[in-house]
Amino acid sequence: MSSQTVPSAPGQSEFDRATTVRDRGDGATFDVDVDSGWTVGPKPNGGYLLATAARAAGAAVVAAGSEHVHPLAATAHYVRAPDAGPAEVTVEVLRLGRGASQARTTLSQGGEPCVDIVFTLGTLPPPDVAPEPWWTGPAPFDVAPYDECMPLQANPPGAEFTVSIMDRADVRLDPAVLGFALGQPSGRGELRGWISLADGRLADPLALLFFLDALPPATFELARTGWVPTLSLTTYVRAWPAPGPLRVRQYVQSVDQNRIDEVCELWDSAGRLVGQATQLAGIRIPDGVEAPTPER
Amino acid sequence: MSSQTVPSAPGQSEFDRATTVRDRGDGATFDVDVDSGWTVGPKPNGGYLLATAARAAGAAVVAAGSEHVHPLAATAHYVRAPDAGPAEVTVEVLRLGRGASQARTTLSQGGEPCVDIVFTLGTLPPPDVAPEPWWTGPAPFDVAPYDECMPLQANPPGAEFTVSIMDRADVRLDPAVLGFALGQPSGRGELRGWISLADGRLADPLALLFFLDALPPATFELARTGWVPTLSLTTYVRAWPAPGPLRVRQYVQSVDQNRIDEVCELWDSAGRLVGQATQLAGIRIPDGVEAPTPER
Repeated sequence: MSSQTVPSAPGQSEFDRATTVRDRGDGATFDVDVDSGWTVGPKPNGGYLLATAARAAGAAVVAAGSEHVHPLAATAHYVRAPDAGPAEVTVEVLRLGRGASQARTTLSQGGEPCVDIVFTLGTLPPPDVAPEPWWTGPAPFDVAPYDECMPLQANPPGAEFTVSIMDRADVRLDPAVLGFALGQPSGRGELRGWISLADGRLADPLALLFFLDALPPATFELARTGWVPTLSLTTYVRAWPAPGPLRVRQYVQSVDQNRIDEVCELWDSAGRLVGQATQLAGIRIPDGVEAPTPER
Repeated sequence: MSSQTVPSAPGQSEFDRATTVRDRGDGATFDVDVDSGWTVGPKPNGGYLLATAARAAGAAVVAAGSEHVHPLAATAHYVRAPDAGPAEVTVEVLRLGRGASQARTTLSQGGEPCVDIVFTLGTLPPPDVAPEPWWTGPAPFDVAPYDECMPLQANPPGAEFTVSIMDRADVRLDPAVLGFALGQPSGRGELRGWISLADGRLADPLALLFFLDALPPATFELARTGWVPTLSLTTYVRAWPAPGPLRVRQYVQSVDQNRIDEVCELWDSAGRLVGQATQLAGIRIPDGVEAPTPER
C-alpha cells in the first residue's frame, strides 16, 4: 500500500485542487474549472462532478448559516456532458433543517445547464470520534487481498479511449472479476476490489462521492458492451471512512429494455458500510450477443 | 384474490381520481387536490405524491412534443409535508431526448415548495407486448403464498394514528415478518409480502411509484421505533407489470448515526423485477433500545 504511506493533506491534493469552487461573492454562484484529468474518454466523470458540486452546495449552506457541510445524499441527473474548462455551479438552498439541509445545484457551461443535483447535507464526525453504527445487516463482502488485486490502467492495451480517472483513483480489481479484460466475462455482472486516491490523500465524505461512480460498468462482466450513460444517479454517504483503501463492489441486478440498474457499495478498513449508490443507465446490447445464464 | 376479480378501469379508479392533475393551460402548471385518503397519520404518503407529480411531468413532456409519458426514474426530496387540499405542481422540462426525457417538478402549497422531484421519463410497452428482460441476476425472493399473508389495516388495535393508505393499497405481509405487530420484531430488518390496489385497478407504471413507498418502515422488524422521515427517495420503474398482486420486499442495510437506508423491490406475477427503490431516512432510536444481532 505504498500510496498510503505519505498521505497528501486535504487541501493540497490533486482531488482538492480539481474540485475547487470559487464563490463569486453571493454565496450561491461558484466558478469551477472542470479538470481534463478526471475524465472517461473526452468527458468528465460523473462522480468527480458530484464532488465538485458538493463543495459548492456545502459552501452555500454554510453561507446561509448552517453547519451542514458534508454530503449525506446526492441525486444527480446529467442533462448534457460538459467539457473540460470553465463552468459555473449555482446553488438553491431548499431547506435549512436541524439535522439535515437540502440544496439543489446546477452545473452550467456556456449558459447551458449540464448537471442537476439535489444534495442532502449534514455533519459527519471524523472516524476517530464517530459513534459505532447501531446495526448493520450484511457483513462486508469478500474480496481478494489488496496485494493480489490488479490495478486498472488509464490506457490499457486495446482500449478505445483513455480513462484518465484511473490515474486519479487507485482501483484494484479482484482477479476473479477481470475476465472482461481477456474477453471472457464471468457472467455474474459484478466487479469488486479496492479503491483509494492515487496521490495518497485520505478519503473523506467528498472523496466517497467520487469513488461511488469511479468503477467501470459492472456489465463488462456480463458481455462486451460499451460504457453505459447514466440516466439517474443516487449516492449516500453513511459515515466518514477510516484511513486505508476501501472495499468497493458494483453489481447489476437487471438488464431490461435497454436499461440497467447498478448498485455500488463502499466499506472502510474498520468494516463499516460508508457509501452506497444506485444508478439507472442506458445500455446497447449489440445484436446477437447472448445473455449469460444467471447463477441462482 | 377477490380484489382482482373485477378490476377498475384505469381512469375510473380511486387512484386515478386522487392523482388527477389539471393543466392551467400552459402545459407546465397543474392544479392538484392532495387527497385526505392517501395519508400516513395527517400527512400525505410520499409515493402517492410521487405518482401525482409523475402525471404532471408526463403531461408536460407530452405538451413539449415527446411521447415519454411513463416514469422510468424519480428522485424525490420532501422539503415540507403538504396538507390534504389544493396544491399546484410546476414542471420544468430539463431535456427531451430520443430514448428518455427529464423533467423537474415542484409541488407547492400556499406558495411554499413542498416536494422537489426529478423524473426520467420514457415509454414502457404494456406487458403483453414488452420484450423479455435480457438478463436478471437474482431470482424473485421467496414469500409465503398470497392467501397465507395478513392484510395490513388502516387502524390496527393500539395504533397511534390512522394509516389510510392501507385502505387504498391491499398490503399483505408474510406471517414471518409480523413480529413487530406483537412487539416481537424478528431482528432481520426486512418486510415482505404482496401488494395491489385495493379497488382492483390493475397496476401500471404510475401505480408502481405509489407501491414503492407504501410499506411500513422495515425498521419495525428491528426495534420499536416510529415511522421514519424520508430525506431522499429514489425509485426506478423497470417494466409495466403483468396483472396480479406484486411481490414486495423492503429491507434495511444499515442504521448509522440516526439515519437508515431502505431498499424496496417489486416483482410481478410473471417473475419480472419491475420496480426498485432506495431511500435515506432519519430515525430516532429510543434510549436503551439494544440492536438485534445481525444474522450473518
